[in-house]
Amino acid sequence: MSDPKARPPVDEFDHIARLLRPLAAGAPEALGLLDDAAILQSRPGQDLVVTTDTLVEGVHFLPSDSLDMVARKLLRVNLSDLAAKAAAPYGYFLCASWSPRCGWDEREAFAAGLAADQAAFGIVLMGGDTTSTPGPLTFSLTAMGWAQAGETVKRSGARPGHRLLVSGTIGDGSLGLAAATGGLAQMDVRRRAALADRYRLPHPRLELRAALLAYASAAADVSDGLIADAGHIAEASGCAVAIELGATPLSEAAAAWVAGEPNRAVALAKLASGGDDYEIVLAAPADACASAVAAAKAAGVVLTEIGRFEEGAGVGVQMDGQPYAAPRAGYRHL
Amino acid sequence: MSDPKARPPVDEFDHIARLLRPLAAGAPEALGLLDDAAILQSRPGQDLVVTTDTLVEGVHFLPSDSLDMVARKLLRVNLSDLAAKAAAPYGYFLCASWSPRCGWDEREAFAAGLAADQAAFGIVLMGGDTTSTPGPLTFSLTAMGWAQAGETVKRSGARPGHRLLVSGTIGDGSLGLAAATGGLAQMDVRRRAALADRYRLPHPRLELRAALLAYASAAADVSDGLIADAGHIAEASGCAVAIELGATPLSEAAAAWVAGEPNRAVALAKLASGGDDYEIVLAAPADACASAVAAAKAAGVVLTEIGRFEEGAGVGVQMDGQPYAAPRAGYRHL
Repeated sequence: MSDPKARPPVDEFDHIARLLRPLAAGAPEALGLLDDAAILQSRPGQDLVVTTDTLVEGVHFLPSDSLDMVARKLLRVNLSDLAAKAAAPYGYFLCASWSPRCGWDEREAFAAGLAADQAAFGIVLMGGDTTSTPGPLTFSLTAMGWAQAGETVKRSGARPGHRLLVSGTIGDGSLGLAAATGGLAQMDVRRRAALADRYRLPHPRLELRAALLAYASAAADVSDGLIADAGHIAEASGCAVAIELGATPLSEAAAAWVAGEPNRAVALAKLASGGDDYEIVLAAPADACASAVAAAKAAGVVLTEIGRFEEGAGVGVQMDGQPYAAPRAGYRHL
Repeated sequence: MSDPKARPPVDEFDHIARLLRPLAAGAPEALGLLDDAAILQSRPGQDLVVTTDTLVEGVHFLPSDSLDMVARKLLRVNLSDLAAKAAAPYGYFLCASWSPRCGWDEREAFAAGLAADQAAFGIVLMGGDTTSTPGPLTFSLTAMGWAQAGETVKRSGARPGHRLLVSGTIGDGSLGLAAATGGLAQMDVRRRAALADRYRLPHPRLELRAALLAYASAAADVSDGLIADAGHIAEASGCAVAIELGATPLSEAAAAWVAGEPNRAVALAKLASGGDDYEIVLAAPADACASAVAAAKAAGVVLTEIGRFEEGAGVGVQMDGQPYAAPRAGYRHL
């Protein structure tokens, strides 16, 4: 490969015309990316659900990550927020700040990643801004989805007595980051690769939409960490939540990692405090749990009951029914 | 002042609760910034106009600029896009990537700037994301406004024979950048300060809304430069545009600068190629120009006719009626 510093600068207008405009081809709202703004028609009876997330190179992805994967992760972390609100993906706006190390090839890879996931998730580019930066690559994406008016699943609907459930498996995001950065050297290479893939490419749980709409009283996606995000639901709902660490659902690779750690509770607390799982944590009335689990199963997703909401405030963590003092409350961007 | 590196890191949750949540107090859509997403109700008969712009420290603002001014500029460059579409400001989403040099005081100043302009322009915070960055401060803002369905003024409505008009004065943005970075040393200090202020704090031309809705066939804001942005209208409209440099409206400070330059045409071309004016450039049918000018005047804004649209494609620049080869086509972010 040639010296990145020797690459000719990319013409921004060319970049927009050749790489971005095709991504907006399916969206009349985008006005061909030829205007100052996009124009979205209201949909009577529907609410527009809007979320936005930023990924910074060296903070949220690795400088060694390929840019098609970064683009897909950027789209998916936002789609994960829409999934938590039970909204149907609609369109997105992209702000990209390109660093000098990125030439045409990197931008083309980024656009290819977006194109692949646009097709996979039925979402289109509607607008954005392209700038340069002397610093790390920085991408902000604002994603929009539609929901029936008033039917969005918020964080604030949990009530004392409701159960806490989580989709899929927990801890693969943080173990995947360790694997992707050369950690977990004692683990077999196949498991390490599976974890790194999970970190690089989350799977937004959009298939849970019907189950959430039917049975969830509250939901959030697991981006800051299971304990932290369950706490966000409790805070928004004005109640407390008790989490049973021993019930944390684990992937085969994560279970193998826990088995190799000296203290099972400490290991589980670490996984439940790590970020980037992009599962859905939700509340459901006790008598709706079985139906929620069945509806999720029909959509191909395992839901596991891991705790309950209570009167009061804050997060209580238990291990096998005994109070456990978690060493940290979740991942914080500092 | 203490060493910036010695500042304690800001707790992001504290930052959101104490500095950002008050900015969202007027927006039920924001769900108190306690959720994964915001929820916007559709407005039957109205379109949602969405625009987004990024400001990077060292590229779009100076490291020496105070952060309340940066916040206001960030909001205003987006409001300028809404103004060009004749949309009424509604709400915004903020992605902020904070560098280590920013402690609580800087963030408080930034929030104060947002609060001031929220009050001035009737817009509220609805959501966002806060991250850290090892690089330059980077802010992306997505602004939304409402327009009557189908009544948004696009870039694509200019037709051959329509006149090109521009609001206010041109060139103050680029001269202001020069003044703010120690240039224009020969200019008197009062004019220099006025220009630097204009660069640091643009004035979105929202007061032109009624005039644009009534008389404009197309419009854009002047962010890349008058020639470039007039060219964007021509491109989106499928026609050519001829611009008369000699008609460029100038502020008293810019006129004084032009008078001191050896070649008037070169000087005017420079101003018409500079960015950051945040005026509105628009097209209007010939028989609507007088009414457009009068309507703008009633709103306190001077509109000046500076050219016309023609059959063909591209931008033709003239000086006193003679073809002029502009040295550059507008500011490009490279």
